[in-house]
Amino acid sequence: MVSTDTVIDFFLETRAHTEVICKPLEIEDYVVQPIIDVSPPKWHLGHTTWFFEEFILKTYDKSYQIFNADFSFVFNSYYETVGKRVVRADRGNLSRPSVKKVFEYRHYVTQAMKYLLESNDDSTLLEVLEIGIHHEKQHQELLLTDIKYILGNNPLLPKYSDSFKEYSIDKDAQVWIPMSEGIYEIGHNSADFCFDNELERHKVYLHDYQISNKLVTNAEYLDFIKSDGYKRFDLWHAAGWDWVKQSQANSPLYWHEIDGVWHYYSLNGLTEIDLDAPVTHISYFEAFAFAQFKDCRLPTEFEWEAAQNQFNWGQRWEWTESAYLPYPNYKKVDGALGEYNGKFMVNQKVLRGSSIATPNKHARHTYRNFFQTDLKWQFTGIRLAK
Amino acid sequence: MVSTDTVIDFFLETRAHTEVICKPLEIEDYVVQPIIDVSPPKWHLGHTTWFFEEFILKTYDKSYQIFNADFSFVFNSYYETVGKRVVRADRGNLSRPSVKKVFEYRHYVTQAMKYLLESNDDSTLLEVLEIGIHHEKQHQELLLTDIKYILGNNPLLPKYSDSFKEYSIDKDAQVWIPMSEGIYEIGHNSADFCFDNELERHKVYLHDYQISNKLVTNAEYLDFIKSDGYKRFDLWHAAGWDWVKQSQANSPLYWHEIDGVWHYYSLNGLTEIDLDAPVTHISYFEAFAFAQFKDCRLPTEFEWEAAQNQFNWGQRWEWTESAYLPYPNYKKVDGALGEYNGKFMVNQKVLRGSSIATPNKHARHTYRNFFQTDLKWQFTGIRLAK
Amino acid sequence: MVSTDTVIDFFLETRAHTEVICKPLEIEDYVVQPIIDVSPPKWHLGHTTWFFEEFILKTYDKSYQIFNADFSFVFNSYYETVGKRVVRADRGNLSRPSVKKVFEYRHYVTQAMKYLLESNDDSTLLEVLEIGIHHEKQHQELLLTDIKYILGNNPLLPKYSDSFKEYSIDKDAQVWIPMSEGIYEIGHNSADFCFDNELERHKVYLHDYQISNKLVTNAEYLDFIKSDGYKRFDLWHAAGWDWVKQSQANSPLYWHEIDGVWHYYSLNGLTEIDLDAPVTHISYFEAFAFAQFKDCRLPTEFEWEAAQNQFNWGQRWEWTESAYLPYPNYKKVDGALGEYNGKFMVNQKVLRGSSIATPNKHARHTYRNFFQTDLKWQFTGIRLAK
Amino acid sequence: MVSTDTVIDFFLETRAHTEVICKPLEIEDYVVQPIIDVSPPKWHLGHTTWFFEEFILKTYDKSYQIFNADFSFVFNSYYETVGKRVVRADRGNLSRPSVKKVFEYRHYVTQAMKYLLESNDDSTLLEVLEIGIHHEKQHQELLLTDIKYILGNNPLLPKYSDSFKEYSIDKDAQVWIPMSEGIYEIGHNSADFCFDNELERHKVYLHDYQISNKLVTNAEYLDFIKSDGYKRFDLWHAAGWDWVKQSQANSPLYWHEIDGVWHYYSLNGLTEIDLDAPVTHISYFEAFAFAQFKDCRLPTEFEWEAAQNQFNWGQRWEWTESAYLPYPNYKKVDGALGEYNGKFMVNQKVLRGSSIATPNKHARHTYRNFFQTDLKWQFTGIRLAK
Ligand SMILES: [Fe+3]
Ligand SMILES: [Fe+3]
Ligand SMILES: [Fe+3]
Ligand SMILES: [Fe+3]
Repeated sequence: MVSTDTVIDFFLETRAHTEVICKPLEIEDYVVQPIIDVSPPKWHLGHTTWFFEEFILKTYDKSYQIFNADFSFVFNSYYETVGKRVVRADRGNLSRPSVKKVFEYRHYVTQAMKYLLESNDDSTLLEVLEIGIHHEKQHQELLLTDIKYILGNNPLLPKYSDSFKEYSIDKDAQVWIPMSEGIYEIGHNSADFCFDNELERHKVYLHDYQISNKLVTNAEYLDFIKSDGYKRFDLWHAAGWDWVKQSQANSPLYWHEIDGVWHYYSLNGLTEIDLDAPVTHISYFEAFAFAQFKDCRLPTEFEWEAAQNQFNWGQRWEWTESAYLPYPNYKKVDGALGEYNGKFMVNQKVLRGSSIATPNKHARHTYRNFFQTDLKWQFTGIRLAK
Repeated sequence: MVSTDTVIDFFLETRAHTEVICKPLEIEDYVVQPIIDVSPPKWHLGHTTWFFEEFILKTYDKSYQIFNADFSFVFNSYYETVGKRVVRADRGNLSRPSVKKVFEYRHYVTQAMKYLLESNDDSTLLEVLEIGIHHEKQHQELLLTDIKYILGNNPLLPKYSDSFKEYSIDKDAQVWIPMSEGIYEIGHNSADFCFDNELERHKVYLHDYQISNKLVTNAEYLDFIKSDGYKRFDLWHAAGWDWVKQSQANSPLYWHEIDGVWHYYSLNGLTEIDLDAPVTHISYFEAFAFAQFKDCRLPTEFEWEAAQNQFNWGQRWEWTESAYLPYPNYKKVDGALGEYNGKFMVNQKVLRGSSIATPNKHARHTYRNFFQTDLKWQFTGIRLAK
Repeated sequence: MVSTDTVIDFFLETRAHTEVICKPLEIEDYVVQPIIDVSPPKWHLGHTTWFFEEFILKTYDKSYQIFNADFSFVFNSYYETVGKRVVRADRGNLSRPSVKKVFEYRHYVTQAMKYLLESNDDSTLLEVLEIGIHHEKQHQELLLTDIKYILGNNPLLPKYSDSFKEYSIDKDAQVWIPMSEGIYEIGHNSADFCFDNELERHKVYLHDYQISNKLVTNAEYLDFIKSDGYKRFDLWHAAGWDWVKQSQANSPLYWHEIDGVWHYYSLNGLTEIDLDAPVTHISYFEAFAFAQFKDCRLPTEFEWEAAQNQFNWGQRWEWTESAYLPYPNYKKVDGALGEYNGKFMVNQKVLRGSSIATPNKHARHTYRNFFQTDLKWQFTGIRLAK
Repeated sequence: MVSTDTVIDFFLETRAHTEVICKPLEIEDYVVQPIIDVSPPKWHLGHTTWFFEEFILKTYDKSYQIFNADFSFVFNSYYETVGKRVVRADRGNLSRPSVKKVFEYRHYVTQAMKYLLESNDDSTLLEVLEIGIHHEKQHQELLLTDIKYILGNNPLLPKYSDSFKEYSIDKDAQVWIPMSEGIYEIGHNSADFCFDNELERHKVYLHDYQISNKLVTNAEYLDFIKSDGYKRFDLWHAAGWDWVKQSQANSPLYWHEIDGVWHYYSLNGLTEIDLDAPVTHISYFEAFAFAQFKDCRLPTEFEWEAAQNQFNWGQRWEWTESAYLPYPNYKKVDGALGEYNGKFMVNQKVLRGSSIATPNKHARHTYRNFFQTDLKWQFTGIRLAK
């Protein structure tokens, strides 16, 4: 743990960055929830704030006055009862509180936190604070991908910004990195912050394998499409094939075929696809089928972690073959924060690395991201192994 | 038909009134669509404007420049294709065009219409104009009921205004108005505007019946609730009973039981229910079950029209027993406007009268409103017959 | 009412005929329920028997021993609780009671009824008996159409019998029968049996209309298909169009296009369609769209009844434009039998006439059959009016 | 591989045993499919037969005459087209082919196989034969659990047999078996038959753990129920909690609370639960929540396999914490048989051991069974680890 000043700076910088992400938005963009997985930006702003109010201010600041008692259910994950009134409402149906009120709430809580931190350096407080900061950073990434979904599914296809770059081209030739059979140590191993799911550090036995130095490109994925990859049921899991038929998937998300030419909606607007860019916005099902098509496979998360210092990563969340499961001797944190990770450890796949949407000081080579096998709206990608 | 000046005034007055209704809203309120039947206010603003652009300006004003080519699918009822791009999106997922842009669109079209009307009094133009004005008035009522739904299902229960009154008390004693067997003439019968579904005027044969001079009150409906009306399947249609179980209906919409006391959310906010007020926000299924409970029935739309000059109406849309069907010799208008009414003439019930949300110069004793049997969000009510 | 002997004969003859219908079946055919609207033949056999046990034997025969207490929920319309055990099961999931047991149940109840009727001619008993007999006749028709659905949706397409003829050709030329404006009397008007929904006999006012002497043929319907009738949304109700898209309807039920030639599965097996046969197995939505296509309309049930003695009917249940609603002064029977008809009087359409599947002594010109607007598995047909 | 005689015996014995399982059934029991996961017994009989016809007789017996060309789609897993006719039908909707015909089909194919095997000992034939025999054995277990579902969800609760015993009592005291950290070898390692998913044999690194010598009993599970296990969301995965609320799960399958006493439907009929019996018919979600409740966890499949020779297993399929994934260097078999296991390796959990429904000569300590996390109809059970 570091000095109080550094912590306050880290906190304020994180709070400020969330608002920077929202700068290009119209008020209306803050409100909508086009699919269940995409939350309204307004909700992210309030929810990350509520976290500090609920888990820090209420506990450590005896003089703290709650900003608005109703916000605890609006910005909590569960809001089934309103005092005595029972109201059911999805996030995207809530026009109030207004965006202005939510920013007031942010400011109010940020200030209260600042005063509190200047006078209180209790170590358990600082521990929760660190979780809160990283929680907000996680939501920063979601904020960006949710904004992309909101704008990218609007028939007007408005752009988010001209400056945000979704990728850089990796000019290296593709090679297979050979890895040797043996025992490897996996999991977090430093005094720095990590989430509970990265522990305990433990040993795994890996057999000989090879892993690609490069992410799969749009050109390679286009070849899969043109080779009828979406029509060859032998390439897919049974569940993946059901998903293809039901969702009528035939390309990555945000790809549009216009007069026979594939276009891509990026945060900079609609353009033709760049064949050299790393493919993104594909589901695990698609990543798996693509690997089958190439007579390869996806790496496990352990293979990825063992080899990760031999290749570049950070542009795309990389689907692994590993199911999201607890490490040996995994321990849930007590209380409400204990819900954080453990309760999602079923029927999801681990993604490793990070993406161009991941904020500063958030990525780690032991970081375990996870999503359901059909989700495409994150900046996901494919690295092959064999 | 009346003078050009009067028509322009009527047009401008209608356009202005739509915007008056929206005055109390926050930007965010314009965007959401909490259920499929409730459209975002923004959409109503654009859709009523698109009607004039599509059916009048494009045809009658050769110099007219379309405001934005994309708006025709955003504000049309069907928007399945975007040029070559195929995009599916529900109204409530569209953050763009922004509210500001939609108001610009309104202003642009209103001005273009004004100039056109000052120089063109073509009679078919005026006919379509009249439909357009009444179309906008229909949407004014929907706008208000949709706003109520949006605010009234928000956990913060914000009020819309202090001044809008949802009812006045009818102090008359309840009496049965006797009506005699015989032939009655039904349907529109003047030079004034009417919709196609009010024609042809025709004869119906009615048998002796009695109809109440008053709407059913909250007190009477509360008695139905307290007498287990929602639990006695013998009072309900089979389809109504399925609906009760599936929707867990147990009161009118906007009723909240708080510590044993029934409250009501009106556009003025949450208060205890007023026992003397006419009950509202009930589905046809509930209206029917209530009538069964009272050993009465709902009037047919013909019984209602034949008797309507003997009682006060206008506070609540009154569910009738009549299915929404074409009158003898009904003729669909040619072309796109022909879709207006005829295509809804199946599996809906007729409501007669009008409500406190109905705008000026829109109600008529021959007016035929219609909704599915499970819908509650309009200002519906019950008048008994026997 | 007639003599006891005649009544007993009528009863026994009806009971026997139900079993004659089942003669060609394999045991397995009695069990399945391919869609919710189609009941297993076994269920029809038990349910019609339960009716006599429940409404007659339990009340009028003090010495009657219930055959099996569990059968009352198995063969009732609602079986939500099993004594204290709660069991949910659809009819088609019930392998027990076995077919053999159900026939034993039939025999047991038939015998008990026979003995009762020989010694008891109570007039209310005879009234319920008559309902029970006609209830069984209704189920005879359903039995046949359900058997057709079960066999006709089996990939082996087994035939039911060689002798059952689904239609005869009407060789008359098509003409329009003119009917004059005026008051007509509608509803049952004799001492013979009728259902509650055919009363009260009452007056309706009809305007000039014309009604076809013939049912629409396969040739005419094929023309509708070939003229893109299923693709022209302007011909359909909005709800009908949704139904077309969702169900992918493109022909009557049991039509199969094989190498460009339309075939039809009848109870005699699969053959090419007979162009001169009256079209059948079409939904109300299709009947309406076809009428629009021909610039005609469907008759109301009143128009049908007023004109019916001027044309042949009885091959197909004829969809009318009338919603299924109570006649003036309609009265529900008290008690459980009161559920019989009234509770279905919403969101259904009336069909008039009868079909080749309707048993003897069951059709009447005042008979009101009714189904939802999307159902196709009955022997429905189209007669045009204008 | 063994001698031809032994193989023929093994084949015939397996074929015969399938029919022994069906002995107690009525014809009607062969037909129904109460839920999607439960196939009609008739289908199991035909499908296991089709396997030999499709993968052996068609290839190795040049003179073989197909029994019925239509059976290949009826008993295949996919039957979307019928020659030129397109027919969609779920298994439980198919009354034909009749049970008699299916037994004729079995006899015909069994005889043809017998003659073929007497004259042909091609080694690839024998390899497919072995898969076919074990395929039939897998379906024998499903047959029994599907029969239980069919009878156990019938409101009459008929029993299957008096002789089939669902469990024996394990009288040992519960103890924790300690296992030491280190490298263990996992996977099949003999000349005997195994499925492709048990290979390659490979090394895993395990950390210190303890595993119970006993399965969890009904008494222990009842304590979980009585301690509000189904109401404490902190014990469940998020997906598990959604499942509890949606399915209203509150006990193992086949448990019925009657007057406050828990009863259990076994294949011998309904009785009070035996507190000492091993709990069964619970989903993975329930197994996990139970383990959380006991402050324990489920073992991984590797922990299970490493320790399995130190405890008794074979009464219940034991849910493990392991997701169903390919072993290192797993290879799909080529062609249609390659679909066998690999395509299911996503979003399922591994179960280890075997159950009282598993046929002779089918269980192995390396056997990997797998099911979705919400399924309860197999004889599943719980063994704790920590
Ligand atoms: Fe969060
Ligand atoms: Fe409109
Ligand atoms: Fe019935
Ligand atoms: Fe199989």
